[in-house]
Amino acid sequence: MLVVMRNDATDSQIQAVVDEIERMGFRGVPMPGAQRTAICIVGNPGPVDDSRLLTLNGVKETIPVSKPYKLVSREMKTDPTVITIGDVKIGGGKPVVMAGPCAVESEEQALTIARQVKKLGAQVFRAGAFKPRTSPYAFQGLGEEGLKILGKVRQETGLYIVTEAIDHTNIELVEQYADIIQIGARNMQNYSLLRRAGLSSKPILLKRGLSATIEELLMSAEYIMSGGNLQVILCERGVRTFANHTRNTLDISAIPSVKEVSHLPIIVDPSHAAGRREYVLPLARAAIAAGADGLLVEVHNDPTHALSDGPQSLYPEQFAQLMKEIRTLKFMG
Amino acid sequence: MLVVMRNDATDSQIQAVVDEIERMGFRGVPMPGAQRTAICIVGNPGPVDDSRLLTLNGVKETIPVSKPYKLVSREMKTDPTVITIGDVKIGGGKPVVMAGPCAVESEEQALTIARQVKKLGAQVFRAGAFKPRTSPYAFQGLGEEGLKILGKVRQETGLYIVTEAIDHTNIELVEQYADIIQIGARNMQNYSLLRRAGLSSKPILLKRGLSATIEELLMSAEYIMSGGNLQVILCERGVRTFANHTRNTLDISAIPSVKEVSHLPIIVDPSHAAGRREYVLPLARAAIAAGADGLLVEVHNDPTHALSDGPQSLYPEQFAQLMKEIRTLKFMG
Amino acid sequence: MLVVMRNDATDSQIQAVVDEIERMGFRGVPMPGAQRTAICIVGNPGPVDDSRLLTLNGVKETIPVSKPYKLVSREMKTDPTVITIGDVKIGGGKPVVMAGPCAVESEEQALTIARQVKKLGAQVFRAGAFKPRTSPYAFQGLGEEGLKILGKVRQETGLYIVTEAIDHTNIELVEQYADIIQIGARNMQNYSLLRRAGLSSKPILLKRGLSATIEELLMSAEYIMSGGNLQVILCERGVRTFANHTRNTLDISAIPSVKEVSHLPIIVDPSHAAGRREYVLPLARAAIAAGADGLLVEVHNDPTHALSDGPQSLYPEQFAQLMKEIRTLKFMG
Amino acid sequence: MLVVMRNDATDSQIQAVVDEIERMGFRGVPMPGAQRTAICIVGNPGPVDDSRLLTLNGVKETIPVSKPYKLVSREMKTDPTVITIGDVKIGGGKPVVMAGPCAVESEEQALTIARQVKKLGAQVFRAGAFKPRTSPYAFQGLGEEGLKILGKVRQETGLYIVTEAIDHTNIELVEQYADIIQIGARNMQNYSLLRRAGLSSKPILLKRGLSATIEELLMSAEYIMSGGNLQVILCERGVRTFANHTRNTLDISAIPSVKEVSHLPIIVDPSHAAGRREYVLPLARAAIAAGADGLLVEVHNDPTHALSDGPQSLYPEQFAQLMKEIRTLKFMG
Repeated sequence: MLVVMRNDATDSQIQAVVDEIERMGFRGVPMPGAQRTAICIVGNPGPVDDSRLLTLNGVKETIPVSKPYKLVSREMKTDPTVITIGDVKIGGGKPVVMAGPCAVESEEQALTIARQVKKLGAQVFRAGAFKPRTSPYAFQGLGEEGLKILGKVRQETGLYIVTEAIDHTNIELVEQYADIIQIGARNMQNYSLLRRAGLSSKPILLKRGLSATIEELLMSAEYIMSGGNLQVILCERGVRTFANHTRNTLDISAIPSVKEVSHLPIIVDPSHAAGRREYVLPLARAAIAAGADGLLVEVHNDPTHALSDGPQSLYPEQFAQLMKEIRTLKFMG
Repeated sequence: MLVVMRNDATDSQIQAVVDEIERMGFRGVPMPGAQRTAICIVGNPGPVDDSRLLTLNGVKETIPVSKPYKLVSREMKTDPTVITIGDVKIGGGKPVVMAGPCAVESEEQALTIARQVKKLGAQVFRAGAFKPRTSPYAFQGLGEEGLKILGKVRQETGLYIVTEAIDHTNIELVEQYADIIQIGARNMQNYSLLRRAGLSSKPILLKRGLSATIEELLMSAEYIMSGGNLQVILCERGVRTFANHTRNTLDISAIPSVKEVSHLPIIVDPSHAAGRREYVLPLARAAIAAGADGLLVEVHNDPTHALSDGPQSLYPEQFAQLMKEIRTLKFMG
Repeated sequence: MLVVMRNDATDSQIQAVVDEIERMGFRGVPMPGAQRTAICIVGNPGPVDDSRLLTLNGVKETIPVSKPYKLVSREMKTDPTVITIGDVKIGGGKPVVMAGPCAVESEEQALTIARQVKKLGAQVFRAGAFKPRTSPYAFQGLGEEGLKILGKVRQETGLYIVTEAIDHTNIELVEQYADIIQIGARNMQNYSLLRRAGLSSKPILLKRGLSATIEELLMSAEYIMSGGNLQVILCERGVRTFANHTRNTLDISAIPSVKEVSHLPIIVDPSHAAGRREYVLPLARAAIAAGADGLLVEVHNDPTHALSDGPQSLYPEQFAQLMKEIRTLKFMG
Repeated sequence: MLVVMRNDATDSQIQAVVDEIERMGFRGVPMPGAQRTAICIVGNPGPVDDSRLLTLNGVKETIPVSKPYKLVSREMKTDPTVITIGDVKIGGGKPVVMAGPCAVESEEQALTIARQVKKLGAQVFRAGAFKPRTSPYAFQGLGEEGLKILGKVRQETGLYIVTEAIDHTNIELVEQYADIIQIGARNMQNYSLLRRAGLSSKPILLKRGLSATIEELLMSAEYIMSGGNLQVILCERGVRTFANHTRNTLDISAIPSVKEVSHLPIIVDPSHAAGRREYVLPLARAAIAAGADGLLVEVHNDPTHALSDGPQSLYPEQFAQLMKEIRTLKFMG
């Protein structure tokens, strides 16, 4: 249930509603909007008796929520959520580009690529320090050493950092270095990690699972938001189908579908969808044309020697071309 | 195997190569290119002895073809195929829009919609006279009466007509009225129909099957081309996956994938992919941005009373918006 | 709508109901059951006024049918359909085994295999004379010559013949030679072929399409039955998924699902599902254990030289083992 | 690489090989077989120089391993692995039945169901204390209280306990109460959990992810085994496809496929595959007929009031029937 406050409701009136919801045994999450604040009741196993709430000062009305998710829903909050990191706004109309290698391999590699993508217009640097790999024998990332390198990248280039946390204890370390914490596709339903991410003060980039429905993706975002962290960025990165000409099938319709039912921003990772750099540019253009709020792109200065995901990493020249094409599209709408 | 002719090869030299291939028990299909003609040998169960061919006048070289398809392949013909219907060029760089209702329901309905989409910039009118329907009890189209109405639409509006043929005998009737003959997704591997389409003088619009790989789509085009009809337009219309927020999952990567391996044009049907008109515009924009040669869009003046596919048909106003957005994108590249 | 006749209704009373339904502009299909006959009304676009029908002699009641299919439905006919071909009963409780090569390659090949599978207990011989192949350059079957060979196989071995018809004109030839006419997976929604099969006096073996839902499979059976041919055998042969350890994913749950909603028999083709002979035996055992009415199995005396589907064809010794294992299971229930 | 020891190799010779492998910078895992012991080298990024190893006493030969997994592989260990828990042997030829409710709801509920399934022949009791749920607002299990109830179930009924651990810290608690630790489908690629499971002394039941290939399932088992815990039981529970007549599509071919490439036992969960109790029995029979080493079945005394998975839980009478049918099949082979 949603408690909608009047335009002129004061902070103390909002707090009084939250307190009352807690007395009822549930939890109230205020969600400020451009016009007015709504308070979402979570933790209720069934219908809620709203008679007491309706008598409180500043309350305009209550609205039952029909979807299995609440906090992620447009029913709940009609304005699109804009996530601000320094001077970068994700969901603010202008696509944000996050670029970098699959994994941090060395300080030199990270800095080289970071300088290149910065110069070409990327705003966020992506690179993994902890890598979930299908094989226990594959390169698993540099760990904390990798995070420290990412810290230097930020310091030197001014790029913000997005990097992956792989479990609910590991995230403590990651959030010391990252500006955005990534939760990978294989962890989309790792609920311990989601709950812990809900307690973080950093924005979370949540990637869609390989066979997750849009509803399941939103439910996983709901886990994070129900913990108090309302800064969630969704990411479409292709789903698993019978089709074999790409690594995954980019579900471009995820963009309008998410935007219809949720206020959260959604970006696209064309690299993991394609699996081959030859297809990354057309998929990136399609993503922006379909309304994506940004891109997460793999770029490597030496893809043939990359420790992971080489075949899908762009050469810097290709990334330059991508940025050019995206800019043209961007001024379209 | 491919026999590549020299730039200055004469028509009679080309014919001599075709004749020699026939004497060897196979068939030779000349494929003219901008620079030179290549002749594809089809019908050979295995490797071909090219020693005799290499001695003929005008022959530059022979190239073994490694893919299971030949005539559709870029190995065979590097220039993109452009299909010309009157003043419309499909594959010529400027996206072509084919629009209209799912089915011809009456002369008035067809003419009303045709005038609207013509005015808004569509070049081809799409509407089914023969409708393959999942249920034997559903509306199956007006049949020949529907084709006659399409004839009037062309006469009155100047729009070219694309309409579906449903089997290898029915196509005889359809090709009398259609400018482009559509083969539907459920018939993509109806080989009797494909073979007959290969004998037609009309271009064929071949839709990808619900669970066809790109290679299978190309093999079906190869059936048509191996019969002598080289005018094939491919169409991505979404594939069947677990995802349930759309009727089908638009595989946007089909566009760069087809363009990489084939010279044939490919258009996109965002209506059948989406299944809901709300998603048609973003999918259409994505298709054009990814490099599609055109769109096949369902438009209806009264979708709520349409006899089929109402929920995915655009209102004329929405189609106007689509045309406007596509035009902006078009000038981008 | 279903018109249920009383136990003691006479043939002329049944005919009077059929006549009345025709006067109403629809068609009545009598479906005799063990206890009583029901008459299904088909061709009605919406609800039917049953007031006149309820006054006719012998009519017990009318039942609205809620599913999109009618004739295939258990609502319509609770007794399982048993299809009788000579002394073979499909759907009669004892699994029927149909075995043979993918394609007729020669008289000697067909007769050799037929004698072997006959000796080992197969009741029906399977082999294609017309082969739908993904590539236009692949072996397409011996055509009518192949059908004549199948005629000799029946004459010499006493095996009944199941073989594929590939379009609505080709079926005329096939039905002269076949005891059961197969409609392949790629033609499951070739409605011209389905309609023509509905006019045949021969039983139809309808294979599930690569990405067909159970409802779509039943709707295709409904096409055949609505034409008057009530003898339809369904066949599960695996569906297309992301899984890559088999050619297709055998959907074993199709068996209880079909049996729940339909009275039609269903058999399983473990060969096309597996794609590798190593998995055919366990899949065949699973099919029988799950309640399948029979098997369609590829057996070849020389699989390494088979013109098609060699890797999934059993050696005769493996087929002997399969028959032994099936027999053990068969006495279980 | 695999170092195969001679039949008569002594323990100290085996240890010497392990020590030498460690000196080379890798790790050696001895895998005892019925005939002889093989030592698997893990941790090597590429080919290993075996010249020194071949000179050690007791070494018969070295074998390069071509698959991405090693410890799970039949190349590595040809005898099937049998996991022994008290008097229960999983993989020992006789199917093991694990039954119980989705979740522990109360002591009374758990004990009631446990007594029933024990009486009917189940050997292991399944019930979740920690439940990964799609919605943050759904019942998440009783937690440690649930584990304590499971402890009482074991004490009172003598049933062994299988229950789920949901992350790498939670597993410490679970392994105090469980005889088998379950890793759920959504955690199949939670590598932190897999690594921690590799340090446990309890057998691990690893469920296949919703869209995991067989190779990915085996790689996840490899994570566990590479940590030292060789007791892994795989579980097929249906995969996600387009098919909508079941909750998931049971991939029955997973059984022969796993058995071909791995020595690990595999059981089947027909309840989650079916999603409806009506299909559980045929799927269970199919699983056993295909060679599964056991079943994991949901049984509830009052499914309509179950807090989760009610529609797919068997009534005790249905479970009695399942046990009867499985027994018949069991004596078959």
